[in-house]
Amino acid sequence: MTLAVRYLAARTLDTAPAENPPPGPGEVEIAPAYVGICGTDLHIFHGDMDARVAAPAVLGHEMSGRIVRVGPGVENWSPGDAVTVMPLRWDDTCPACRAGHQHVCQHLDFIGIDSPGAMQQRWTVPATTLVRLPGSLPLDHAALVEPTAVAVHDVGRAQVRADEKAVVVGGGPVGILIALVARAAGAEVRVVELSAHRRRLAEKLGLTTWDPAADDLAELVGEWTGDAGADVAFEVSGAQGGVDTAVDVLGVRGRLCLVAIHPRPREVNLHRFFWRELTLVGARLYDRTDFERAVTLVAEGTVPAEQLISKVVPMAQAPDAFEALEGGGDVMKILVDCTDDSQGAAQ
Amino acid sequence: MTLAVRYLAARTLDTAPAENPPPGPGEVEIAPAYVGICGTDLHIFHGDMDARVAAPAVLGHEMSGRIVRVGPGVENWSPGDAVTVMPLRWDDTCPACRAGHQHVCQHLDFIGIDSPGAMQQRWTVPATTLVRLPGSLPLDHAALVEPTAVAVHDVGRAQVRADEKAVVVGGGPVGILIALVARAAGAEVRVVELSAHRRRLAEKLGLTTWDPAADDLAELVGEWTGDAGADVAFEVSGAQGGVDTAVDVLGVRGRLCLVAIHPRPREVNLHRFFWRELTLVGARLYDRTDFERAVTLVAEGTVPAEQLISKVVPMAQAPDAFEALEGGGDVMKILVDCTDDSQGAAQ
Ligand SMILES: NC(=O)c1ccc[n+]([C@@H]2O[C@H](COP(=O)([O-])OP(=O)(O)OC[C@H]3O[C@@H](n4cnc5c(N)ncnc54)[C@H](O)[C@@H]3O)[C@@H](O)[C@H]2O)c1
Ligand SMILES: NC(=O)c1ccc[n+]([C@@H]2O[C@H](COP(=O)([O-])OP(=O)(O)OC[C@H]3O[C@@H](n4cnc5c(N)ncnc54)[C@H](O)[C@@H]3O)[C@@H](O)[C@H]2O)c1
Ligand SMILES: [Zn+2]
Ligand SMILES: [Zn+2]
Repeated sequence: MTLAVRYLAARTLDTAPAENPPPGPGEVEIAPAYVGICGTDLHIFHGDMDARVAAPAVLGHEMSGRIVRVGPGVENWSPGDAVTVMPLRWDDTCPACRAGHQHVCQHLDFIGIDSPGAMQQRWTVPATTLVRLPGSLPLDHAALVEPTAVAVHDVGRAQVRADEKAVVVGGGPVGILIALVARAAGAEVRVVELSAHRRRLAEKLGLTTWDPAADDLAELVGEWTGDAGADVAFEVSGAQGGVDTAVDVLGVRGRLCLVAIHPRPREVNLHRFFWRELTLVGARLYDRTDFERAVTLVAEGTVPAEQLISKVVPMAQAPDAFEALEGGGDVMKILVDCTDDSQGAAQ
Repeated sequence: MTLAVRYLAARTLDTAPAENPPPGPGEVEIAPAYVGICGTDLHIFHGDMDARVAAPAVLGHEMSGRIVRVGPGVENWSPGDAVTVMPLRWDDTCPACRAGHQHVCQHLDFIGIDSPGAMQQRWTVPATTLVRLPGSLPLDHAALVEPTAVAVHDVGRAQVRADEKAVVVGGGPVGILIALVARAAGAEVRVVELSAHRRRLAEKLGLTTWDPAADDLAELVGEWTGDAGADVAFEVSGAQGGVDTAVDVLGVRGRLCLVAIHPRPREVNLHRFFWRELTLVGARLYDRTDFERAVTLVAEGTVPAEQLISKVVPMAQAPDAFEALEGGGDVMKILVDCTDDSQGAAQ
């Protein structure tokens, strides 16, 4: 018998036994090793996504693990292979898919939100979602591949080039990863973040940070860019103040990559978009190329996974971990460890 | 002695004698023939731009005319040449200029706003601003080159390609020109416009129009695009409702070209930018390439100037024309005729 962490209702998770039917045609069964908790999981935990999530629901889409069984017709994959999963299933028939943008399919199944996720000891997914991990990559580090793929996608959408100046607004897990990936692309980066703890962590990673509550950002940007303004800004805070900052720091023809989710419309200084010919680019998820690049960045240490993982907890403590993350501030990335035999897995 | 139409204070224009010192080095003196009244001129007339415009101020930047005198050192231009003027003077030293975006120079002198405009019988400008007109192009038609250059720039910024579906929100002079230029680029175009008069005019030009107050735009767009949404939208209304429409009609990866001036921040559905990976592109003015392309489009009749010019009035009636345009609705483009000898020009 195996266990799963389940969302039951707002602010309520449990750990319960799960069924494991054998994988069907084209499917594989994975034993998840580590599963990261992300902002979307927190939104679900808050009950904000009850309209979309059918409880009881197994959460989790940032994961690493090993294949246990392969279903009929699955080629090139074998039990024991270390993998992560690109948690997207598209319909291949909608206008978005036909235009080649499957990752924003108009009927996208995001595995871990719209269908069962990885926070369990056995997880069955289509073989097409698998992404191979190099043997040298520790599985806990590999749980950061998914959010890194988000960052790779965003830096790509913003078309960051070497020697450009980029401001990342919001230094949460996604913002920090964007900063690291943009730096790896050759950009000079500043991270704007309200939390002192998160600024400290960013500084430890060699990133320069600004505090929007204390620093005069206009002056700092002016000095930094010789009054030109930044080439790129990433809005990763989800706050109105973050949107304002991201628009204000940009120079002529600057690009604002919108990563954060803003449930409500925001006030945007459109006059500045006109006046400076700015561009705003929405960015959502990733495609396979982004995922494969993310594997490389984590494996080679460009993304220093060690320093980004605040804590690893056993499944039974997942509910506490959600509470801790809700408090914000003092934690960055928390992983749930699904490998512990004592938790009941028949491995 | 020659005459000039001058802005004195909010809602007050007069016609007064003007001085004509000989053109200095690198300058030319032009006898303006026709000068269009545009939305910005109306804003000035309302008094909304008093902080920027030093009264008494000669307005006008949409013009055609003939060279009268050339200053020392001016080559390739002679008296009698038919010209229009690209009314921009940049400093060549600011970060925008150094990045090659002179048209959005951080210290741009827009001639006709920041310095004296064309609504007079003699006008002196730098020879570098001149754009040659073909002999076959009637000078009244040529007064539409400047707003057409705006449209060319906008269609370029939106990267409109053949067979794409484009929605133009706002069917004023600029919106109609954008619709015509986008159509000439091979796009299928819809114009969304509140005014029945303007919709009628657009229909006469062979454009299909929608009424946002009466039509169900979501349904129309769905039918038109097979539920994909439009590829491109132009926001040319300047209204909050226009922004909403332009965002709503777009499909996955759609591009919204922001042309209108929004003096105040607007509410923008950023969630949709994220969800559909939309792009917003600010567009301001034009460059020389846009201007030269605009000359061709007007000369070859792709822009049917005849049908867009509602009225031509002598200088003395310019104040009345401003009043008429303020009323909106029943007029599109009004030209001021500066050629009439009886107005006092010593031609
Ligand atoms: N585009 C995508 O596909 C995608 C994928 C994952 C997450 N997201 C979204 O990205 C956003 C960031 O995710 P996260 O997990 O890093 O979230 P997070 O909440 O942990 O981080 C946001 C950070 O922004 C900071 N912040 C808030 N207001 C600020 C302001 N005015 N100026 C500067 N900083 C400010 C907060 O202190 C916090 O550290 C969320 O909105 C999330 O939903 C998008
Ligand atoms: N980007 C540039 O360089 C540039 C150059 C010239 C003009 N402009 C701006 O472009 C805009 C349009 O200029 P114009 O001269 O055509 O102005 P205009 O005011 O004549 O036209 C705007 C049109 O939008 C319509 N409209 C208003 N609300 C609407 C709505 N919710 N839905 C659909 N239609 C709506 C109006 O009925 C009107 O016909 C102005 O804001 C102007 O300042 C920008
Ligand atoms: Zn699809
Ligand atoms: Zn300049």
